[in-house]
Amino acid sequence: MTNPLRLGVAGLGLVGTSLVRLLQRQRAGFVVRAGRECPVVAYSARRKGDRGVDLGDAVFFANAAGMAASADIDVFVELIGGADGIAFEAAKAALARGVSVVSANKAMLAAHGLELAALAEECGAQLLFEAAVGGGIPIIKTLRESLAGNAIQRVSGILNGTCNYILSRMETEKLPFEVCLSEAQRLGYAEADPTFDIGGFDTAHKLAILASLAFGAKIDPGAASVEGIESITLADLSAADELGFRIKLLGVAERMPHGVEQRVHPTMVAKSAPLAQTMGVLNAVSIDGDPVGELTLVGPGAGGDATASAVAADIVDVARGIRVPAFGRPAASLVDADRVPMQRHEGGYYVRLAVVDRPGAVGAIAARMGERLISLEAIMQKRATKEAVAAGVVPVVLMTHGTTESSIRDALARTVEDGVVREKPQVIRIEREAV
Amino acid sequence: MTNPLRLGVAGLGLVGTSLVRLLQRQRAGFVVRAGRECPVVAYSARRKGDRGVDLGDAVFFANAAGMAASADIDVFVELIGGADGIAFEAAKAALARGVSVVSANKAMLAAHGLELAALAEECGAQLLFEAAVGGGIPIIKTLRESLAGNAIQRVSGILNGTCNYILSRMETEKLPFEVCLSEAQRLGYAEADPTFDIGGFDTAHKLAILASLAFGAKIDPGAASVEGIESITLADLSAADELGFRIKLLGVAERMPHGVEQRVHPTMVAKSAPLAQTMGVLNAVSIDGDPVGELTLVGPGAGGDATASAVAADIVDVARGIRVPAFGRPAASLVDADRVPMQRHEGGYYVRLAVVDRPGAVGAIAARMGERLISLEAIMQKRATKEAVAAGVVPVVLMTHGTTESSIRDALARTVEDGVVREKPQVIRIEREAV
Repeated sequence: MTNPLRLGVAGLGLVGTSLVRLLQRQRAGFVVRAGRECPVVAYSARRKGDRGVDLGDAVFFANAAGMAASADIDVFVELIGGADGIAFEAAKAALARGVSVVSANKAMLAAHGLELAALAEECGAQLLFEAAVGGGIPIIKTLRESLAGNAIQRVSGILNGTCNYILSRMETEKLPFEVCLSEAQRLGYAEADPTFDIGGFDTAHKLAILASLAFGAKIDPGAASVEGIESITLADLSAADELGFRIKLLGVAERMPHGVEQRVHPTMVAKSAPLAQTMGVLNAVSIDGDPVGELTLVGPGAGGDATASAVAADIVDVARGIRVPAFGRPAASLVDADRVPMQRHEGGYYVRLAVVDRPGAVGAIAARMGERLISLEAIMQKRATKEAVAAGVVPVVLMTHGTTESSIRDALARTVEDGVVREKPQVIRIEREAV
Repeated sequence: MTNPLRLGVAGLGLVGTSLVRLLQRQRAGFVVRAGRECPVVAYSARRKGDRGVDLGDAVFFANAAGMAASADIDVFVELIGGADGIAFEAAKAALARGVSVVSANKAMLAAHGLELAALAEECGAQLLFEAAVGGGIPIIKTLRESLAGNAIQRVSGILNGTCNYILSRMETEKLPFEVCLSEAQRLGYAEADPTFDIGGFDTAHKLAILASLAFGAKIDPGAASVEGIESITLADLSAADELGFRIKLLGVAERMPHGVEQRVHPTMVAKSAPLAQTMGVLNAVSIDGDPVGELTLVGPGAGGDATASAVAADIVDVARGIRVPAFGRPAASLVDADRVPMQRHEGGYYVRLAVVDRPGAVGAIAARMGERLISLEAIMQKRATKEAVAAGVVPVVLMTHGTTESSIRDALARTVEDGVVREKPQVIRIEREAV
């Protein structure tokens, strides 16, 4: 047995305390798996104290960066969060002196992953971040190692449990968005300010990390076109159901002829697809690779325990002497991928319109679609609600065959100008497999 | 860049040729991922020749064991198959001289995995076998590395694509077993002698390997109770559908208070479970771990390309200098797990009976169940077919709450003795989550 692997844990919140409990509860097995003892010898937190866990003789640091820079540790476990500030400063300080960093911090990695990966290589340290995406799902290792022989075409996933909980709940209980959001907040699945989750930004951070691993590209955290789930109504969920779909907030990164397309938006997913069957707070990621085909990983995407499981796996890797570049390839070999703008996105579209209740209105819409060479796969005129009747509109749902974002946006703008459509049209992209 | 990693490939069948093509097609990317060139410098096959791939200057060996023992290689890639004979002899020869072994051979690993793992450790070589279970699904690495911080409670999976194809096809097309089997044979999904697949033995081999990784136990290839899918009828699939289930051939390994239960049998899986949603030739594995919760991995379980993807990942691991024991723990630390006999299995049961068409018959059956303290969750008397009417029987389906294998077997034997049931009762176990 070699020397112990000395851990310094920065941050004793939900994940940090779960990790400490895991290391204590499973200690005997952990030592066998890691090949050595992995004691927590130092920690930092907002305040010294027990936090419900016993850290024995571990040295307390009030400042995480101070711990990273000076503690006698082999691994700096960064569970602080935040793209910049103390987490980034501390991670750099640790790597600079050859101390490996295990991080759960998707925001920091999306913003500074490339710089940290280069620093780690330069200083002979490891940078591991299984916990940053997909919680307990081993998606990072799968892309970094298990699919090393593949050319990845596409990664798509449900990467935010809050959104998936809300959409699942709306669908199964027929409750409106606001009610489900409140419930998510009450259950601790959503923050008091839920914008970061429901606006799709959390998903975009995670997607940027996955895209880098999948395509060997430099992380480009601003690359994704981002839409949240705030506009999804029960009418959309019900129409989706009738058409054979579920609505999921997906992050999709795809290799295109002219670059990489990254997008986060509510998506119509065929009910038979594995992603459609992922309900509640679970996460799921599907990967299309050559030659492997399609792989899907499903599991708990958040929570202290699931995240601690991922952090623990990274610690064992360091203990075993893993030597893999952070993004599966040397940082210097990561390429600048061109962004494919959303206007060039191609696919099928679901469109829900409040159509003015007069003869010829639907025909006028279809004509505008035809002008842009958009071919319709389905038209459903739904029985109007009392409110709609009073407003003189009827709800109409269209599904298009493959077209481009610019064509559909243009055609819809014309229908609004024509005065045959009231309100902003609801537009939801359909995933390819389903068309 | 370090020295090339010299590969010797034994076996140029479907997987071997896919691997060679992968290494050639993706060479540039592969070198970046592996950190070094990985040329095939030697190969063995039934005959020298092109096999549709160009091996350039690679040295041909008529005998794989000869290649393993003498070729100038760093990795012996074993794609021969078979538990014993040349594959095992060659793997031992390679490891004995410190040459790492990458194998897709589930039969050999189930039979000799422990011996090979110990030999690899002793000789400072790696033994890797991602391709042996689940084809392109990274289930070996997930259990060996990604869940190293977990205590695994249970592993269950659809591990044989042939069986899953046949059951899926029977269910969706309402075609009988024999027709779907012929179709599977015509499409190359099933062997001319399909016993190994449809009898559940292939699943049992793979399960034995997963159980060892999951529980840190010595491989026990004879541990599983094995039943195949030959007896599944359309009547069972239709009753399952009505009750909210699908029938899948599962391999289940579970840690019990008195040992490890391993079983392979057709299983009623709730339609909402990820395993139930895995259709066609796909494989899927679910893992219950503490603290991670439930993870499910779904993907192509067979085929040259998917399997080559897994072999390639192992090669990259060797190239990167991975140093992990074959079963995630030193071979000497693997424990002897007691077998939990099937008679002690506890769970719910689906039972389909041909009940003699006379007053009181169902009551007599229910009474026999009651004597064994078996509580019924559902009873469905189905409209009898013409054949059944002619035979004087009515088909009755029962679902029980949790009981033991010995109780249900005993109760059913009594009903047959009582003369109220004709033919052998059909018994299908229900998975726990569904009860």
